[in-house]
Amino acid sequence: MRMYDIIMKKRNGGRLSPEEIQFFISGYTRGEIPDYQVSALMMAIYFQGMDEEETLALTMAMAHSGEMLDLSAIEGSKVDKHSTGGVGDKTSLALTPMVAACGIRVAKMSGRGLGHTGGTIDKLESFPGFSTAISREQFIRQVNEIGISIMGQTADLAPADKKLYALRDVTATVDNMSLIASSIMSKKLAAGADAIVLDVKTGSGAFMKTEEDSLALAREMVKIGNGAGRKTIAVVSDMDQPLGRAVGNALEVKEAIDTLRGQGPEDFVELCLTLGSQMLLAGGKAQEPDQARAMLQQTMESGAALEKLAQFVQAQGGDPAAVYDTGLLPAAACSEPIPALEDGYIHRIRCDEIGICSLMLGGGRETKDSEIDLAVGLVLTAKVGDYVKKGEPLAYMHYNDPHKAAAARERFYRAYTIGAEAGGKAPVLIHRILG
Amino acid sequence: MRMYDIIMKKRNGGRLSPEEIQFFISGYTRGEIPDYQVSALMMAIYFQGMDEEETLALTMAMAHSGEMLDLSAIEGSKVDKHSTGGVGDKTSLALTPMVAACGIRVAKMSGRGLGHTGGTIDKLESFPGFSTAISREQFIRQVNEIGISIMGQTADLAPADKKLYALRDVTATVDNMSLIASSIMSKKLAAGADAIVLDVKTGSGAFMKTEEDSLALAREMVKIGNGAGRKTIAVVSDMDQPLGRAVGNALEVKEAIDTLRGQGPEDFVELCLTLGSQMLLAGGKAQEPDQARAMLQQTMESGAALEKLAQFVQAQGGDPAAVYDTGLLPAAACSEPIPALEDGYIHRIRCDEIGICSLMLGGGRETKDSEIDLAVGLVLTAKVGDYVKKGEPLAYMHYNDPHKAAAARERFYRAYTIGAEAGGKAPVLIHRILG
Repeated sequence: MRMYDIIMKKRNGGRLSPEEIQFFISGYTRGEIPDYQVSALMMAIYFQGMDEEETLALTMAMAHSGEMLDLSAIEGSKVDKHSTGGVGDKTSLALTPMVAACGIRVAKMSGRGLGHTGGTIDKLESFPGFSTAISREQFIRQVNEIGISIMGQTADLAPADKKLYALRDVTATVDNMSLIASSIMSKKLAAGADAIVLDVKTGSGAFMKTEEDSLALAREMVKIGNGAGRKTIAVVSDMDQPLGRAVGNALEVKEAIDTLRGQGPEDFVELCLTLGSQMLLAGGKAQEPDQARAMLQQTMESGAALEKLAQFVQAQGGDPAAVYDTGLLPAAACSEPIPALEDGYIHRIRCDEIGICSLMLGGGRETKDSEIDLAVGLVLTAKVGDYVKKGEPLAYMHYNDPHKAAAARERFYRAYTIGAEAGGKAPVLIHRILG
Repeated sequence: MRMYDIIMKKRNGGRLSPEEIQFFISGYTRGEIPDYQVSALMMAIYFQGMDEEETLALTMAMAHSGEMLDLSAIEGSKVDKHSTGGVGDKTSLALTPMVAACGIRVAKMSGRGLGHTGGTIDKLESFPGFSTAISREQFIRQVNEIGISIMGQTADLAPADKKLYALRDVTATVDNMSLIASSIMSKKLAAGADAIVLDVKTGSGAFMKTEEDSLALAREMVKIGNGAGRKTIAVVSDMDQPLGRAVGNALEVKEAIDTLRGQGPEDFVELCLTLGSQMLLAGGKAQEPDQARAMLQQTMESGAALEKLAQFVQAQGGDPAAVYDTGLLPAAACSEPIPALEDGYIHRIRCDEIGICSLMLGGGRETKDSEIDLAVGLVLTAKVGDYVKKGEPLAYMHYNDPHKAAAARERFYRAYTIGAEAGGKAPVLIHRILG
C-alpha cells in the first residue's frame, strides 16, 4: 500500500477502504508518512468528501491510535457529555452533579480553556485545593464510590487526532463535516463511555454558525457514535449570545451553584434539563423525557445535586464549604456596572466579543502557558430581547486590574447591537434532538 | 501576508494575485513556507484551477526564483525548441544543425534521460570526447562563432520549479494543466531565448494521452510564452508509436545523421521540417512556411547541416569524424532480428514497452546514478500500418549482454498488436500548429 495511491484515489473521487484509512493513520501517527502527503489528502477530502463508512473508519482508526480507556471496572451505565464549545458554557458544572444524583455514572475527561472560550478544569479550580491531576485508580474508585469524577485529558488519548488537527489547522482543511465529526468522536470513543450525549452549539458564537451546518454535524456524529456501538444522542442548542449570564471562571461556578439551588437563568436551566434528560434516558434511568425532567428538577429541589457537587469537590481535594457559601469562591477586588449608552431593545450580544472581554480582564489564556485570574469576568444583566434604558447596567464587570478593565470596557460595547424596535427576541433555545 | 490565507482563498475558488503567488514561491524557495502548506495549496489548485493571469504569474515567479540566463551577448535571434518527451525522439540532434545552418542562433540547455525516455546529452555523448559541461563564456562565444551550442542544465535555473515538481510528484498533484505548463515554461523563460517552439507530444507514449489534452497544454504554454513577451509557437505531434525507427543513444545519433544526409525516416523528417520551419519563421529567417521548408531541405541537400553538426561536435571536444563515418560511433557487439510471430498488419507499437526494452538492454538509467550503454537499443523495421509476414523481422536488437537481450526480447512482443485486417494506419503526424 502506498500513500501516493491513497491520495490519488481520493482526489479522483474514490472511496477509501478501512485498510487504506488504517494504513494512513498508523503511518502518520508513527511519523512514517510525511505531513505534506497528509495535507494533500486532507485537501482532497475537503473537495471529494467521505461517506459514512469512511468517516467511521477514520474515527475508529484515530480512536485506536492511542489508549482506549477501559471503564469496565465501573459498575452501571457510563454516560459522557460533550459540548462543541461556547461562551458562558458552564453546563458540565451543573449537569454532572444533577445526573450523578440520579444514578448516572459520570467518568469524564475535560480540558482547559484556550483563547476566548473557557475550560471546565479551569472553572473547577475555583474551588480552593481542587485538582484533576488524579490517577486512573482514584478516578475509577471515585466514580464507583460517589458516582462522579473529572480528570484532565491525558496526552495519549487519540494522538492521531491531535497530530492531524494541528496539521489541518495550518492548511485550511479544518471545515469539512466528516473531519470535524471524526476528530470529536475519536476522543469520545477513546474516553470509554457507553453512551454519549452531544451538545452541538449553533450561532455566531459557535464553531457552526448556521442551524443547517450544526444539524449536519450533529447527524454525522450520531452516525459515528452509533456505528461504533455507543448509544449517541445530539442536541443542537443556541450559541448566538452567551449562555446564562456569567462569563468567567469563578463567576460561572457561582452561577452553576445558583442553578443547583433552583435559582439559575432560564436558558441555562432549560439546557441542563434537556441534556440531562437525554443522559438519563441513554443511561436507562428514565423511560420518558417528562419523567427524566422531573427527576432532575427533584435533585435541585431536594438539595441532592448540591450535595453531590460537594462530595465531588471534596473527593478531588477541594474545599466543599464553597458549594454552600459562594462567598468563599475567588472574588475580584472591584465590580462595577457597565451602563447602556442609549435606550432600546438588545438585538444582539456577540459571544466572541464578550469572551474576549473576559480574556482581556485576565480570565482566559492567550497562549497555552498563560496564568489565569479565576475571579474576573462579566455578569450580564440584560440579554437579547430585553429593553434597557440609557445609564442602566448592561452587565457588571468584575476585575482586579483597572488598566485591563478600561481596555475591556471599551471592547465590551462592540458586542452589542441595540435598536429602537422590539425584534431581537431571543431565539428558541433548543433546536433539535437526534439519536 | 500569510500562506494560510492563500490556501484558504484558492480552496474557496478565489483568484490569487501576482503578489500572493510571488510570496508563496519566494517563501517556499527560501524554505520559509513548509511543504505541507504547499502540497495543500497544490491540491486546492488541482480542484479550483488557475486562470491565465495566475498561471503566468506562477510561471514568472518560478522563472525568477533562480538565475535568468542572459543571452544578450549573442547577436541575432535566439530560438529555443522544447519537446514534452517521447521514445525515439532525436529531434534536437538533427533539427538544431539544420536551423543553425539557416542562421538561427541555437543556445540550448538540455537534460539527461531518466527511465524509459532518453536525453539529448546522453545521445550527444555518443561522439567520443563530446562534453556539455562547458562554461557560460564558452557557451556564448561558441554560439556567436558557429551558431550552435548545447550545455547541460545548471541547477540554479528555476529552482522553485524543481522543488515544487518534486513535491507534486509525491502528492498526486502533477496532472493539472496550469501547473504542468508553468513548470515547463518557467525553465524555458529562464533559459533566455527570444522565441520558443514547443513540440507537444500526444498519444499513448506521451505525457498527454489525448489530442484534446495535448492541445490544451499547447494553448496554455503558448499563452504563457506570449504573455511573458517571448514569441511562442506549439506543434502537437504524434507519440502513439516511437518516432522514426531508432531507439537507443548511438542508434538515434546515426538516424539523425542519416536524416541530415537526406535518408531519414519519413515521419521524423516531416517533424523536423515542421518544427524547423516554425523556428525559421519565429527567428525572422523566412516569411512563409514553404520558403522555410525549402531552406531546410537545402541544408540537407547541400551538406550544410551535416557540416554544422561536425563544427558543433568539434567545438565541444567531440570527434567530428563520426559525423561523416557513423561506423565510428559506439556499436554493440551483437545485432539480431526479432521476427514477427504471425502474419498481419501492425495495429499498435507501444512506446513505453519499446522504451523499457532499450532500458533493459542497458540504454537508459533506472536511477539518476546509473551508467548507460550508449551502443545498445532497437531499430524498428516495420511501423504501424505495415504488413509483416511471420518470421520477418519486426526490429533489430543491438546488445552487448545476451542475458539482458533475452529478457528484453520477451518484453519486446508486449509492445505489438498485430491483426489480420488492414486498419492500424499510422495516424497523421502533425495535428495542429498554434501561436
